[in-house]
Amino acid sequence: MSSCFGNHIHVSIFGQSHSPAIGVVVDGLPAGFPLDEAALAAFLARRAPGNSPLATPRKEADQVSFLSGIANGKLCGAPLCGVIHNTNVRPGDYSQFSDLPRPGHADFTAQAKFHGAQDGSGGGHFSGRLTAPLCVAGGICMQILSARGIHVGAHIASIAHVSDRPFDPVNVNPADFAAVQANPLPVLDASAADAMTAAVLAAKAEGDSVGGVIECAVTGLPAGIGDPMFDGLENRIASAIFAIPAVKGIEFGNGFDATKLRGSENNDAFVMQNGAVATETNCHGGILGGISSGMPLIFRVAIKPTASILRPQQTVSLSEQKEAELVIHGRHDPCIVPRAVPCIEAAAALAICDLLLPGNYQN
Amino acid sequence: MSSCFGNHIHVSIFGQSHSPAIGVVVDGLPAGFPLDEAALAAFLARRAPGNSPLATPRKEADQVSFLSGIANGKLCGAPLCGVIHNTNVRPGDYSQFSDLPRPGHADFTAQAKFHGAQDGSGGGHFSGRLTAPLCVAGGICMQILSARGIHVGAHIASIAHVSDRPFDPVNVNPADFAAVQANPLPVLDASAADAMTAAVLAAKAEGDSVGGVIECAVTGLPAGIGDPMFDGLENRIASAIFAIPAVKGIEFGNGFDATKLRGSENNDAFVMQNGAVATETNCHGGILGGISSGMPLIFRVAIKPTASILRPQQTVSLSEQKEAELVIHGRHDPCIVPRAVPCIEAAAALAICDLLLPGNYQN
Amino acid sequence: MSSCFGNHIHVSIFGQSHSPAIGVVVDGLPAGFPLDEAALAAFLARRAPGNSPLATPRKEADQVSFLSGIANGKLCGAPLCGVIHNTNVRPGDYSQFSDLPRPGHADFTAQAKFHGAQDGSGGGHFSGRLTAPLCVAGGICMQILSARGIHVGAHIASIAHVSDRPFDPVNVNPADFAAVQANPLPVLDASAADAMTAAVLAAKAEGDSVGGVIECAVTGLPAGIGDPMFDGLENRIASAIFAIPAVKGIEFGNGFDATKLRGSENNDAFVMQNGAVATETNCHGGILGGISSGMPLIFRVAIKPTASILRPQQTVSLSEQKEAELVIHGRHDPCIVPRAVPCIEAAAALAICDLLLPGNYQN
Amino acid sequence: MSSCFGNHIHVSIFGQSHSPAIGVVVDGLPAGFPLDEAALAAFLARRAPGNSPLATPRKEADQVSFLSGIANGKLCGAPLCGVIHNTNVRPGDYSQFSDLPRPGHADFTAQAKFHGAQDGSGGGHFSGRLTAPLCVAGGICMQILSARGIHVGAHIASIAHVSDRPFDPVNVNPADFAAVQANPLPVLDASAADAMTAAVLAAKAEGDSVGGVIECAVTGLPAGIGDPMFDGLENRIASAIFAIPAVKGIEFGNGFDATKLRGSENNDAFVMQNGAVATETNCHGGILGGISSGMPLIFRVAIKPTASILRPQQTVSLSEQKEAELVIHGRHDPCIVPRAVPCIEAAAALAICDLLLPGNYQN
Repeated sequence: MSSCFGNHIHVSIFGQSHSPAIGVVVDGLPAGFPLDEAALAAFLARRAPGNSPLATPRKEADQVSFLSGIANGKLCGAPLCGVIHNTNVRPGDYSQFSDLPRPGHADFTAQAKFHGAQDGSGGGHFSGRLTAPLCVAGGICMQILSARGIHVGAHIASIAHVSDRPFDPVNVNPADFAAVQANPLPVLDASAADAMTAAVLAAKAEGDSVGGVIECAVTGLPAGIGDPMFDGLENRIASAIFAIPAVKGIEFGNGFDATKLRGSENNDAFVMQNGAVATETNCHGGILGGISSGMPLIFRVAIKPTASILRPQQTVSLSEQKEAELVIHGRHDPCIVPRAVPCIEAAAALAICDLLLPGNYQN
Repeated sequence: MSSCFGNHIHVSIFGQSHSPAIGVVVDGLPAGFPLDEAALAAFLARRAPGNSPLATPRKEADQVSFLSGIANGKLCGAPLCGVIHNTNVRPGDYSQFSDLPRPGHADFTAQAKFHGAQDGSGGGHFSGRLTAPLCVAGGICMQILSARGIHVGAHIASIAHVSDRPFDPVNVNPADFAAVQANPLPVLDASAADAMTAAVLAAKAEGDSVGGVIECAVTGLPAGIGDPMFDGLENRIASAIFAIPAVKGIEFGNGFDATKLRGSENNDAFVMQNGAVATETNCHGGILGGISSGMPLIFRVAIKPTASILRPQQTVSLSEQKEAELVIHGRHDPCIVPRAVPCIEAAAALAICDLLLPGNYQN
Repeated sequence: MSSCFGNHIHVSIFGQSHSPAIGVVVDGLPAGFPLDEAALAAFLARRAPGNSPLATPRKEADQVSFLSGIANGKLCGAPLCGVIHNTNVRPGDYSQFSDLPRPGHADFTAQAKFHGAQDGSGGGHFSGRLTAPLCVAGGICMQILSARGIHVGAHIASIAHVSDRPFDPVNVNPADFAAVQANPLPVLDASAADAMTAAVLAAKAEGDSVGGVIECAVTGLPAGIGDPMFDGLENRIASAIFAIPAVKGIEFGNGFDATKLRGSENNDAFVMQNGAVATETNCHGGILGGISSGMPLIFRVAIKPTASILRPQQTVSLSEQKEAELVIHGRHDPCIVPRAVPCIEAAAALAICDLLLPGNYQN
Repeated sequence: MSSCFGNHIHVSIFGQSHSPAIGVVVDGLPAGFPLDEAALAAFLARRAPGNSPLATPRKEADQVSFLSGIANGKLCGAPLCGVIHNTNVRPGDYSQFSDLPRPGHADFTAQAKFHGAQDGSGGGHFSGRLTAPLCVAGGICMQILSARGIHVGAHIASIAHVSDRPFDPVNVNPADFAAVQANPLPVLDASAADAMTAAVLAAKAEGDSVGGVIECAVTGLPAGIGDPMFDGLENRIASAIFAIPAVKGIEFGNGFDATKLRGSENNDAFVMQNGAVATETNCHGGILGGISSGMPLIFRVAIKPTASILRPQQTVSLSEQKEAELVIHGRHDPCIVPRAVPCIEAAAALAICDLLLPGNYQN
């Protein structure tokens, strides 16, 4: 297995970059939930390519059509299948990569695993395009969570060396998420957007690419969600997030910075707040022992610079077993970070919904 | 579910800090494998408490006895159950925490999840002691991997502000792992051990604690292991690693540092090496598209400072719903990092073994 | 979850009787396998409606199109998605059943589970039509098994009171399966076909329906396949078979008849045969302890008479909470048994492939 | 995997007939549930050997001790581990079977699967003794179900050619279960017990064995439990039941008899009863479309005659690859059916609890 996720709801993602379609089946969603298809389309549009000088010029409407799972505008309890047809396909762009694997890409490892049977065109099943069905599943989960007062939002924490200001880990709220989406790039500090854009365009001008960090918050999550050990919130969120290509790290709360603090600095004092237990600070990022504390859940994700760059690179010819130069043509994002923001939200929502939905009879 | 792991081998961990025993069932191990119980005991000893001034004075022999799964000194194909009896139990040390949750601990979130039914004594199922059965399962997996030429080793990359030198990501090898274990602390650079020890003792003297970073490498892993999307090596390793208490982050290869590099700097050129495809550098940490590249697998884990500190802390009384001061007595590690090193190795071995064992008919 | 199956390959079935399409995602199939689409179409045709006076007059071409998972005519290792569009839909035929549940159908239990959100039209996700994607997945598995010398075949053992002769449990072979398919009904004894047809038509003439028993055999399965206890061949096959609507029982080998035999009659003596261990008789149906013995695997499945009958029946009005008479119009099979034969083969192949594929490193 | 069960609660059974212990880990049980250990012991006593002339003279107290999962007499949310030590072990009785596989046993198939690494002593992990931990897990589930008004009970429907009267499928209730347990054999009609005992003793006198059928009922199950297709009640119950050695068939409601009825005879009319929807008859055995109807759930299980008989049998010597005579000594049940009754209840309770517990947010 590989492209399946979930213990309670079950997600199965399919498709290749240049197959007739990509899509997702989601089994176990709550029957009767009124899916807002327009809101879902708006969410998918945040990920769609072709919107900005920072992204690939490949145009895909990324319209999802549902083959099943809906009756009378509501989820009907049967597995939902959403399909996005691949329309703007130019397989010729990719024909060389089956022999000349792109550095930083899965071309070589897919070859090692599938011995040449893989669909290499456009990266096949390893393409970033597969985050579209992830966003379909996760976007639906976000709606389900919202109806329970749980909101998921992310922003670009940094691109290259340019940083946005972080979420306030104690007071982050849905208004912040709305503010982020109103900016030309998904950032809290609008002035950071210009500097980030400049950094991306500078790299693009040199045929190069940049990466960045995305910070994600979940508000309204009640205390007590998550299971100990292997099915804690951190495990499950990490498990979903690493499905997004180019992700190379994840940290919760203070994360790696916590390793330089004393316990007395990193522990969050418990306080009473409006009659409920809360913490004064939120170094723990809303998770203790794998279980939600009721404070905002905060995590950050490292996105490596786009592997596809236009500058010539050294690779090997698999057929000739000798070194060779590779020049990549075609359509690529000089920075994938802005488009990855909704993907991070989707993956987080998926993991949380999977832990939350099944009754959670012990909460 | 919660304390279960694995798609192909299946691990189920049980026990509380002060229950009669802790242990693990592992189903799906290869029949006929000659388990080396002495080597396993030596591995467990690396985690056991009571060995150093840096660790808790709680003494536990941590001897595992096998109730099943072995015949004639070999794994027999039936589920293996290993049990470690809890002998040095002082439940009284913990009686206050059911009312006064410790900051940074799972006392409060366990209460929120289980409504008071949880076994709070000694942290119950959330205790770091549960990493002992994890090490039993993972230690067996390490032996199985070793027999296939795959070796897992970790070292302390940093404690507080003191750093060890990192593994050479291209040339790391089992001799490095042996060197690490020969030092008083598991570090590559013996001189770092002294500075780390000083940092821990300084914190301890102030009733405080410190955290750190552990770096882990896996050598000999052939190219082509791992599945796309949700069952990639990163997803599965992260999913196992976050089962270890106090872990707050994980990064692979260049990880968060990659976000500040250009694609041309972070991409690893493919080269021919001794007749095989390799990469010149190893920024990708041995994983591309979730699948092993044949290069050493490298990742780092953030361990927060031990939450149990002796300094007075602010918390709340759950029964009285008001704020209160907490003073923790009892036995605690001022720094958990050295003992976490074999746990990280164990979790990594478990995840890799689970992906590798089941025939991997496509490799 | 519900419509997902498999520990190693993963099947996720979706669709409702009158949704835009029905289909299946299969993840984990062996990359490089040359799928024979024409043979698959021929297999699906055995299940398709509209072929005989014994079946529903609803005509559906049941042509599967693959949205993903195939490259260059071979399975490419990415999840395969096969879709069958619903074309001949007459939802009006079913509008009354949301209020007047059909006796013997899932109309009432779906209502109890989904509180009215279910898609009741045509039975929704509970329709027998969902066996078409099951046959897509299972038909592919049959091809994979065939390539390994493992063949799956079934025939009608009985319809109403008319019996076919059984498979020879020791000597059944693929030639028997071919013979069965050459008959107008899938039976071994062509003369049984006429009597069965007469029994069905007699029931149909009275607005009634009949059921029957299907016997299935698997040849060429090597000894040693299957896992103890919950993942034995019997467990997994039963688990797949009960996904087929109208199945109410399953028995392996001598099954219920064994309960009237002595141990000395039901035990199969081991013998040497062509240098291999075999059994003289095959009362055990090829399975001992959940694991294949190398003898033909034999099981029988009970199919209840079609629930949809034209005679007036008593039911209740859910809206008025009072008893009411129901008269079913529309298109229904007076006997589902002939069309269920390939479904049984498909489900068995799916279960066996799932146990067999993942390397089976212990065999 | 093999000896694991459950999507929501998770059961992992371990042990061999002659290993130090057998046991089970159950993860996901409801925290705070007050386990009645005395009632559990009484339940286990119904399965224990050594109680009757019909059973094996092997004496085992079968006392379970809990290593984890309990605090203050209640389930504490942590995984529960129950262990039963093997005390009355006579491995010598079994030494010959590794070379001379017993007809009807798993000796040969275990050898085929594990290539000689299996623990053959006493049947190893394939021993009927492993139903003791199944009864621990299932007995706890029965208590959890009882607290919700759901009761599980079984009786011997037949042994050899002697039948008990069946449960009244419409009116069966917990008083019937109590009556069954009050008889010397678990039957409804006390007079059947004598005839059954005679049939067993007659076989025993000839060094032979007999089988039988067990009928099980579940009362109080609300409508709407179960999932469509692969996770329906029938699939899940069958999947658990076939874990019990010697089970060769299962049927629900009318089962195989339904195949000889007309639809008009087998469909159950819906009626209003005390203000609720019910069915007039219960041919469907309480399950429609895999989901409970609110009527009693009824199924029957075929138990083959005990494979271990004292009469000489033909087998092969695996080492010499030639035919040989086998004479079994040792301690064996001439009829396993009475002791299997609580095992059937346990397996059913396990499957139902697994479907019911996780909130069932759609019910």
